This record gives sequence, structure tokens and C-alpha cells, in this order.
Amino acid sequence: MPDSESTGSPGQKPPVDRKPDGSKLNPDLISREQRQGSRPGDIFVRVNRPRGFQKVGPGHFLATPEAHIPQGRADRLFLAIKRIFIGRPLAKVEESQERLGVAKALAVFGSDAISSSAYATEAALLILMTAGSAALHISLYTAVAVSVVFAIVVLSYRQIVYAYPQGGGAYNVSKTNLGKMPSLIAAAALVIDYILTVAVSIVAGVQAITSALIVSGHGHWIQILNDKLPGVAEPAVVLCLVFIGLMTLINLRGVRESGTVFSIPTYLFIMGMIAVLAIGIFKAINGTLAPASPPPVLPVLAPVTLWLVLHAFSSGAVAMTGTEAISNGVPSFKPPESRNAARTMTLMAVCLSAFFLGISFLANHMHLVPGTETIISQTALAVFGPNIIYYIFQIATMGILVVAANTAFSGFPRLASVLAADGFMPRQFLFKGDRLAFSTGILALGVAASVLVVLFQGNIGSLINLYAIGVFLAFSLSNSGMVIHWFRAKTRGWRINMVVNGTAAVMTAIILVIAIATKFTEGGWIVIVMAPLIVLLLLATRDHYDRVAAQLRVIEGEPLPSKLEHITILPIDDVNRASLRAMAFVRSISSESLVLHVSTNPERAERLKRKMAKFAPDFKLVIVESPTSSFVQPMITYINAIHSQSPDTLVTIVFPEFIPAHWWEQFLHNRTARRLYRVFEKHPNVAVVLVPYQLVK
Amino acid sequence: MPDSESTGSPGQKPPVDRKPDGSKLNPDLISREQRQGSRPGDIFVRVNRPRGFQKVGPGHFLATPEAHIPQGRADRLFLAIKRIFIGRPLAKVEESQERLGVAKALAVFGSDAISSSAYATEAALLILMTAGSAALHISLYTAVAVSVVFAIVVLSYRQIVYAYPQGGGAYNVSKTNLGKMPSLIAAAALVIDYILTVAVSIVAGVQAITSALIVSGHGHWIQILNDKLPGVAEPAVVLCLVFIGLMTLINLRGVRESGTVFSIPTYLFIMGMIAVLAIGIFKAINGTLAPASPPPVLPVLAPVTLWLVLHAFSSGAVAMTGTEAISNGVPSFKPPESRNAARTMTLMAVCLSAFFLGISFLANHMHLVPGTETIISQTALAVFGPNIIYYIFQIATMGILVVAANTAFSGFPRLASVLAADGFMPRQFLFKGDRLAFSTGILALGVAASVLVVLFQGNIGSLINLYAIGVFLAFSLSNSGMVIHWFRAKTRGWRINMVVNGTAAVMTAIILVIAIATKFTEGGWIVIVMAPLIVLLLLATRDHYDRVAAQLRVIEGEPLPSKLEHITILPIDDVNRASLRAMAFVRSISSESLVLHVSTNPERAERLKRKMAKFAPDFKLVIVESPTSSFVQPMITYINAIHSQSPDTLVTIVFPEFIPAHWWEQFLHNRTARRLYRVFEKHPNVAVVLVPYQLVK
Repeated sequence: MPDSESTGSPGQKPPVDRKPDGSKLNPDLISREQRQGSRPGDIFVRVNRPRGFQKVGPGHFLATPEAHIPQGRADRLFLAIKRIFIGRPLAKVEESQERLGVAKALAVFGSDAISSSAYATEAALLILMTAGSAALHISLYTAVAVSVVFAIVVLSYRQIVYAYPQGGGAYNVSKTNLGKMPSLIAAAALVIDYILTVAVSIVAGVQAITSALIVSGHGHWIQILNDKLPGVAEPAVVLCLVFIGLMTLINLRGVRESGTVFSIPTYLFIMGMIAVLAIGIFKAINGTLAPASPPPVLPVLAPVTLWLVLHAFSSGAVAMTGTEAISNGVPSFKPPESRNAARTMTLMAVCLSAFFLGISFLANHMHLVPGTETIISQTALAVFGPNIIYYIFQIATMGILVVAANTAFSGFPRLASVLAADGFMPRQFLFKGDRLAFSTGILALGVAASVLVVLFQGNIGSLINLYAIGVFLAFSLSNSGMVIHWFRAKTRGWRINMVVNGTAAVMTAIILVIAIATKFTEGGWIVIVMAPLIVLLLLATRDHYDRVAAQLRVIEGEPLPSKLEHITILPIDDVNRASLRAMAFVRSISSESLVLHVSTNPERAERLKRKMAKFAPDFKLVIVESPTSSFVQPMITYINAIHSQSPDTLVTIVFPEFIPAHWWEQFLHNRTARRLYRVFEKHPNVAVVLVPYQLVK
Repeated sequence: MPDSESTGSPGQKPPVDRKPDGSKLNPDLISREQRQGSRPGDIFVRVNRPRGFQKVGPGHFLATPEAHIPQGRADRLFLAIKRIFIGRPLAKVEESQERLGVAKALAVFGSDAISSSAYATEAALLILMTAGSAALHISLYTAVAVSVVFAIVVLSYRQIVYAYPQGGGAYNVSKTNLGKMPSLIAAAALVIDYILTVAVSIVAGVQAITSALIVSGHGHWIQILNDKLPGVAEPAVVLCLVFIGLMTLINLRGVRESGTVFSIPTYLFIMGMIAVLAIGIFKAINGTLAPASPPPVLPVLAPVTLWLVLHAFSSGAVAMTGTEAISNGVPSFKPPESRNAARTMTLMAVCLSAFFLGISFLANHMHLVPGTETIISQTALAVFGPNIIYYIFQIATMGILVVAANTAFSGFPRLASVLAADGFMPRQFLFKGDRLAFSTGILALGVAASVLVVLFQGNIGSLINLYAIGVFLAFSLSNSGMVIHWFRAKTRGWRINMVVNGTAAVMTAIILVIAIATKFTEGGWIVIVMAPLIVLLLLATRDHYDRVAAQLRVIEGEPLPSKLEHITILPIDDVNRASLRAMAFVRSISSESLVLHVSTNPERAERLKRKMAKFAPDFKLVIVESPTSSFVQPMITYINAIHSQSPDTLVTIVFPEFIPAHWWEQFLHNRTARRLYRVFEKHPNVAVVLVPYQLVK
């Protein structure tokens, strides 16, 4: 519906043509139309302006939101459904520019690390329990060891935050200081970690809910659901998939990293944790702390060896996952960015260490054993009792874990877009969707995390075996990069900085080796196999784009043909309005051409010959008789034979395509057109033009 | 690989150009190439002749088998797999011309009807058993009644065979004598019957096998399989689907209606039946005939009413199914065709009546009740005992039922092709495949029969409820048609002939009414609903083709535009070799054109403007800035706006398409091209040309 603007102009010589220069093409989209008024002699000129475009200069338009609405009914329906779930498109100016203070930043970037306290103690206990109940107390020592390492890692990352105020992810730091290959290894490690962050956080979050269900006496629901879904999937796995699906959808809508929204579950969890620890330690000193149900006596399946202790340590080390998030997010902090980020880092480290050590202490004190109910659920239950505060704490645990998973949903697509900008990932990761979110990256992460959850049947113990390796690989690479950085930069205090990062690099490298050694047979090998594969894929993609760019580059002064020689072949079945229209099209593109008829019936061929002589005698006609009853393949073979005579000349196949008036009529037409299109789609020197012929009702 | 032919021509002036007239197009495919010999001055002329085509005249070729071989690797692989299953393509001259004598014709065309004796008695007993054991003997009377009706039907069909030596199916006879609508109703009835023939025959055949398994003490296998496939499907249903799939495959290969092959199971069954009846009746008179296991005492669920008897009668009437096959096949008989067909008809009728009555008698004598074991299996077991002869008879039963199903696989596609030739079915049913079989019809029948078997879970009792209605509708229509035929023809003895066909018409019409009445609620309604739907579909298809033909018809002298005005739009992302090649293509088709760039980045747009000014200043350039990050939809909207300015002008969109060197590279390109193609595919006045650009390795 064009806008209209009527100007009475009686008596005036009317502008006769909508295209005054006789041209069919009017790029400005503005047309004038002459209209007869109600009185004779009255003539109105109606100026039609385009909807959807705003002229900003000659041949230069701005697309308005209207230009983003498709025309087809099916497309509009699809768009309407998409709008319901994803929302209206956003203009680039609407992009969030929120800067975060320390308090909100702790929620947005710190939740990933802090939430690890929800499963780290459990991860260590799961290993130690194989050596029987007597071995469980070792978890306290491993927790202390992890905390010491963590302190050094945090110190080292505080330095990264100052050195890379533009955001210092492992990829970025490795790329600047270590070169291409280490940076790609870091990228692969990060890719794996982002996927695992989603999988582990969501599985742990669902466990918080199922633990609360068991405590509330509704645990049998899980069993009932389990029976209803025989062999297909566990209900917990289904619940995880639902959560991942919802998070994917929400992120496709484009989550503004709203500190306020994320603060609620994060601070609820932090407050809950503080309460658990304070009351728990008080009760422990009092001697009134006891588990809700007595812990089972565990069989001794393995002896207590150094190996077992190292294994438990490398599992407990998953507490450190998520530390990178703050160093990635430096540009989003309020100025002074680096200082605020460093403060947030310290605050996060204090929370996480306190929670991890505290929970490990209480669990030890009560001799808790991981089971259908999680360790922190058991601890909170013993501390609070089965009342409302316990349930709120479980929900807060779920909440912070979802926020942690969300960190990956914003981090992975950003990393993918950086990699795509560097040419290492397909270009579709580079573009933001209508909602200014990197849709492809979000979808890819959602799918990958879902696959992982299904493959591991939501078993958190197995998932954690994969998690630590990637994390410590990235830690080690970025700290090694920082050593080179300080050595090159030689800024004030560079020697001390280098020692801190160097120590962190060595320690995380040692933990990496421990993690690989102890977890290799328990799923760790998957990471060892996947990481090089991802690096190869990144390299192959970059290599492809490089080669294509080199092939496409135009060199100034290089002679390029100004015209593309082509010959046209028109396969026809009959001489009718549709094939004559296709012939008219061929005449107008003034190329050498021939009409091809493959016949399975000599009489029809004769009739066609006569009709061609009558209606289109200017065309060369070739008849190919097929002795079998199939005609498409001989047609294709003949076209190929013509093409191979002058392989450098483009062959254009012109074929009428019937545009049906009703959707179901398409089954009655266009089979040959579709086959020709499919066969020649991948041909380097054949183009297929389907000339539309509208069928009316 | 072209043939080569070397002629030494030293010193001779060489033919310089492969295309002597300067034309790129050489429809004859013969080219000359000049080659330097080993000694200086030696020049050879190599004449390349086309492979795959044989020249028969100017611009007239014959495609050889080579022309039927596709070039692409994937296509060749697909062809190789197809060849394994379907076989090499056959030339039309290879079509079977076997003419059948009475003996072989009884196997080819008679098996459909004769095989009905394997389930007709059972069908009647299934109804009567609801009234308890005492009602079972009524089946003998219904069998006699069915035989009487059958005698009249056979007499009437003998007359059809003489009157329509070109093949007298219900569609043909109705079309000639009753007009369009009755013929389409007959066609719908036949379509339903062909599908049911396959479903019922295969289900009955599988029952013959499962009965033999039960007798041999392996019945528990079925139970075990049943437990292994929980809720998914019964093993018998799976077996039916496997059989239908195999028959579809074999028929796609193209079954020559080889009398010899079909004779083996048919005559084995006939001989077995004669043995069962002869020995059985002898033992019955002797008083030594007893069932293997005593029949169960049946609860009386319903009283014996006229309704029940009529119901049993209309079920037993399925014995008559398949009678049409002989009248359809008259042209395949040895001369005198009609007389041989009539003789075969009589022979078939004698066999079928004897078998049906005989089995009904023996089943009654032993008070047999249908169960997991079929009636004829129980009868044969009582007669032969559980020895090798019994098992051979079961296999023969399966065999004749498969041959019967095959009748539908040759009959339905032929009917469909006749309907397609009359424009009532989509054109793809008209064409024979490489193996001279009507592939589309065969596939459609296989799929439809499979759907039916799954829907009815292989329950023969339910399927038979649907069967009789279609059969008697067709009988009634063709006999009514014959009444008109005789009245019009007035040949010698036309009055008597008219009475015979008239009696048959009335009787089959009465049975039709009985069948509809008694079976309506038990599935008969499906036929009552489907038949009109099929008729509507046939009419709609014909109507569509008629309207299209009328639209496409060229009237001599009518002025048609000799050229098709079109404007060209080139959406480009960058100025590079690929887009410059697309521009060269546009220059060579000499149409009004503009280059369109939708930009999400103003800097890139500026750069593109400068590059266009340098490399292609002859093109109009339009830049559309998109404020959001999506660019395809504004591109589409702009093209639509240009199109709507002069809706009668064809818009050609030219877009470079990257042809990747490796298959996986396609994921890295062509996303916009594919989207544009998909959006404008159905547009009545927009053609999309993807100009291929080969990427090298």
C-alpha cells in the first residue's frame, strides 16, 4: 500500500509515463500516477512513495522496520511465531551499554565461579568414597590444597585484568603472546569448557531440585516418571534438556546482561551459603549438628593411595571453573574498569574459597556421602531442617547455576564471533540476529550441551571428569602468555608479575597433567581427542576462507572479461504458451541458443517439429529420441555433451516453471524442472533459469 | 572419453577452429581437433564423436544406453545401488510380448480369485462364531449361496470378455456405457480394491506361515518376538511389511508376467487343495476325520438372526474377489483371445467354487473355529497330519496369495496409467521407469497397502469388512454398463446377454447394499468415505490439467510477444571476481540492470562504492542501509518494491553461487543465495539465476 498524495492539477498537461525516461528500472521507487478527478478535466497526480525505505541520497536508502517484514503468507506466519518466542528485531542503537559496578558484576561474572561450590565438594567425595567411609575426611585436605592453588590463580588473573583492560580471554592472551597454534589450542579448550559449563551447571541445578523433591517426600515422582519413560530417558535428563532449551530461547531473544535480574539468585545463594556455614559451624561446635538420615557405611573398593588423593584433588579443582569470566568482561565494568574487575575477582575468590572450604568441613563433620541427594542439600537440611529456608536455598542454588550456565551462553557466541572474525569459524557465527544476539553461536551451544547431557545421561560425576582438563589447559596457556607479556612489556614491577603468572602457569600445568593422568580412562580421553580435532577444524576453515579470498581478489589493471560468453539450451516438452514465453526470454537475452526435445514417442516429436516450424522457426531444434521410457537423463547427458565442447562457455538452461495457483497443484508440475535444477546446481559452468509461468485458477 | 580417429595429413592446411562457423554451439556434437604429430610437420586431425548419441538426421539423435548414465559421483553411486535392486534399464523393444494359454493364464490371472478360498470360509465363520458353536454350520449354507451368485457373476464376466477383447475392466466398461461419473466411481472402487487385495493377500499369506509355525511347535517364537517389540508392532505386521516391501521392489524391477514362474505356487496350491478335499471327504465318509485339537466351546454373544446370516454371507462373498483380473487381461491371451479367456474364467470358477464349498464342508464337519491357526491350516492338518505334505501345502498357500497380491501390483499401476492418460491422475503415473514398469503406481500401491496393514494391525477380519464393498460396487457398475452395451449393440442374442448381465447387476447391487448395511460400523464406512474422496481427487486433477492446457494452448495467428522484457538486479556483498563475473553475465544478457548492496556497516558500503566506481562504473548502484544486523529481508523487500513498479516485467535476480571444491565447504557459503532462491522460487514474475563460480582447492 503506497502512501498517496493528491495534488489537483486541472488543465495541466499530465505526466504521461510513470517512468519518464522510458526505463523500466526506477531505483528510487517513487512513481507518479495520473488519475481522473470526479469532474471532467480534473486530473490528479498521485505520488507513490515506497514503504519500507527512506531515501538518504542518490541511490542510497535506509531500510525501515517495515522492510524487515516478509511478504509470503508462510513466511509471515513463521515470522509471527518467531516474534512470539524471540521478540521484535532490535536496532543496533538499542544494544545494551550497561556498565556494572562491583556488586552487580559479582552476580553477572562471578556467579559462574561461585556456583562451582555447589558441586566441587561432591566431586571430590565421589572419588574418595571408593576407598570407604574412612577416606572421606581426605576431602578436607584436598579442599585446602585447591584453595591454595586458587589463591595463586586469582592473583595471576588479577594481573591479566590489569594488563588486558579490553578483555583478556585465554584466546586473546595466547594469540598476542604465544602465537597462532597456542591460541587455537586455548580456543579449543574454551569451546569445550563453555559446553561443559552449560551441561554441568544445568545438571547440578536439576539435582538441587530433585534433592528438594526427595527431601519433601516427593522423590517417588521421579521413580514414577522413570517408569513412564521406559528406556527412553531419565526424567532428570529430560528436565535438563527442557532447561537448556529454555535458556537457548531466552538467549536468542537477547539477554541484556542485566545485573539486577542476575543479582537476585546470586545474592540469595550467597546469603544462604553464609547462613548455612554460620549456623552449621555454630552447631558443629555446639555438637548439635547431625545429618537428617545416618550416612551409609561404604564398602572399601580401593585402597587409599597417592593416586586416589590426586584424583580427588583434580576433581575438587573444578571449583576454579568460571574464573575466566571476569577477565573476559573487563570492558563492561564501570571505570576504573580494571580496578573494579580486580576487586570483583578478589571478592569472588573469597566467597568461593569460603563456601568450598566450609561445605567441605561440614560434610566431613557429618560424614556425608553423595547419593540421590546432593552434599549441599544434605548439609543445608542438617543445618536448617526441612523448612521453607531449606527450600529457598535449593531454589537459589538452582538459580545461581542457571545464571552460571548463562555466562557460557553469552561467552561462547562472543568467542565464536571473534574466531569467525579471524576466519577460523564459519561466517554465520559473525552475524548478530534480529535481536542483536549471535544466534548461530547460541544455537550451536544449546545443541552441543544437550548432546553432552544425553550422552552422559546427566551423570555429573562423568561430566566433571571432562571439565577440569579444558579449564586448566586454558589457565596454563593464558598464564604462560602473561609470562611472555611481562617479559616483553617490562613495565614497573614486571619481574614480580612474571613470577606470579609463571607460578600460576606451572601449577596449573601440573594440575593439568594430574587431571589428564587420573581422568584419562574415565572420559578425559574425549577432551584429548576433541581438542586437536577442533583445532584442525578451525585451521581448515581459516585455510578455506584464505584460499577463497585469494581467488576472489581483483587486482587493479588485471584484464577481466567484461562479458560472459554463454549459450542457452531450452529443453521443451511441447510448444505452448509457457515454452514460447521461455523462448521469448531467450530472444531477449540475445544469446546463441537451441531448443532441445527428448522424445519417448516419435509421433509427438514429429508434431512438435511442425509446431516449432510454425511458431518459433528462428530456433535451432534438436530432437533426441530415447529408446527407453526415461527422458531426463538423456537430456542431462546431451547438455553435458554440448557443454564439454567448449568447457569455458557458460551454458544457461532456460526452463519454464509453473507457478501453481494452489499449493497442492505443485505435485502435478515441475518435476523435470526440479530434477534439472538439482543436477546442475553444483555444476561449475551451467546456470539454470526457471522462467516462471503463473497458472491462474 | 571421445572416440578418436587419427588421419595423418602432413603439409595440409589444418582446420583451425573446432567451431568452423565461429559459433559456440555445435548441436551435432562432432568436433575436429588438430594435433601435432611426433615429427615436425606431421599434423593429425582428431575427430571427436559424441558418446551416448547416434545421429539419425539433421538435429535428430538417438540416445544410446550410455546417455542414461549420470555423471556425478553421488548420482552414479545412487544408480549403482538402484541397478543392484532394480536392474539395468530396458529398451521398449524388450517389453514382454508373452501370450498365455489357458493353463498359464489360470496361474497369472486366476490366482487372485482362487486364492480367496484361503480366507473366505474363515471370514464367514468369524461372523457366525459370535452366535456360538451351534451357528457355525450356517457357513455351509452361505457358502452355497455365494457359489450360486458367483456362477451368475462368472457367466456375466464371460460375456464381458467376449464384448471387450481389448480388456474390459470396470472403469473401461463404465466409461463406454455409463459415462464419466460412474466410470470414476468404478475407478475409485478399483483403486480401493487393489490396495485391499495386496493387504488381505499378504496378511492371509503370513497367517499361513504363522499357522505352520504354531503347528510345528514354534509358535512361542511369535510370542518372544512380540515381547521384543513392545508396543511398537506385532511381528506378523512387520513380516507383512517386509513382504509388501519385497513385492514392491520386485515389481519395480519389472516382473514379466511369466506364466511359468507363477504356475508353480498356483498349481501346487490347486493340487494340494484337491488332495485335501479328496482325502478329507473320504475320511469324513469313513468317519475318521477329526481335528488335531478339539475345537473350543464358544460363548453365545449374539442370537442367530437374519442380520447375522446376511453379515456372514457378505463376508463369505469375498471369495469372488479377483474375478475382474481375467477380464482385464484378455489382450495377453493366445488367440482366440476371448475364447481362451472365457475358458480360463470357467476353469477358475470351478476351482474356486469347489475349494470354497469343500473347505466350508470339511470345516463344518469338524466344527472348526478360527483362532491363531487358520481354518485351512486346521483342515489340512486334520487331513494330512503334521507331516511334510502339510508344510508344503502351507507354503503353497502363501505362494498363491503372493501371486494374487502381484495381480494388484500389475493391475493398479496399469489402471493408474489409464487414468493418468485420461488426465484424472498426476502425469507421473503415466510414465514407465527404466525397467518399463509404472514405478510411481507400484510405489503408491506398496505404500498404501503398508499403511492399511499397519492401521488394521494385520487383522484380516477387519480388512475383509472393507474389501467386499469395493468389489461389489465394481461388479455392479460393470454389469450395469454391459446392460447398456447390449441394448445399444443389439448383436445376436443380445436379449439373453442383457438378462444375464442385468441379473448379475441386480444381484451384485443387492449384495453391495447388504455389505454396506452389515459392515458399515465395522470399517465399511471408511470405503464409503474414501470412494467419493477419490472421485473428487480424480475430478480435481482432471480439472486442473484441463485448465492448464487451456491456458497454455497457442492459437495460430494470435500475437505473442517475441521478446520477454526483463530487468536485472544483482545483489552483491563485495566487489570481487565472483560478483564481477555475475556483472559480466548481466552485460552479456544486455538487460537494464542495477547492483544492489544491503549494508549493515556504513564503512564497508563506502568502500564498496569506491570499488564499484573503479571496477564497474557502468552499473547503477543502490545502497540500502539496514539499521538491524539482518540484511536478507531488506534485500527481498527492495526487490519486491522494484518489481511492483512494473509488475508485468520479469525481474531476473543474478547472484553468484560458489561451487565448492569439497562437499563440506558448502556449509561455509551460499546461504544468501539459497535464501533468495527459496523466497523467489514461487514468485510469478521473478527468476533467480545463480551464476556458478568454481572455487579451486
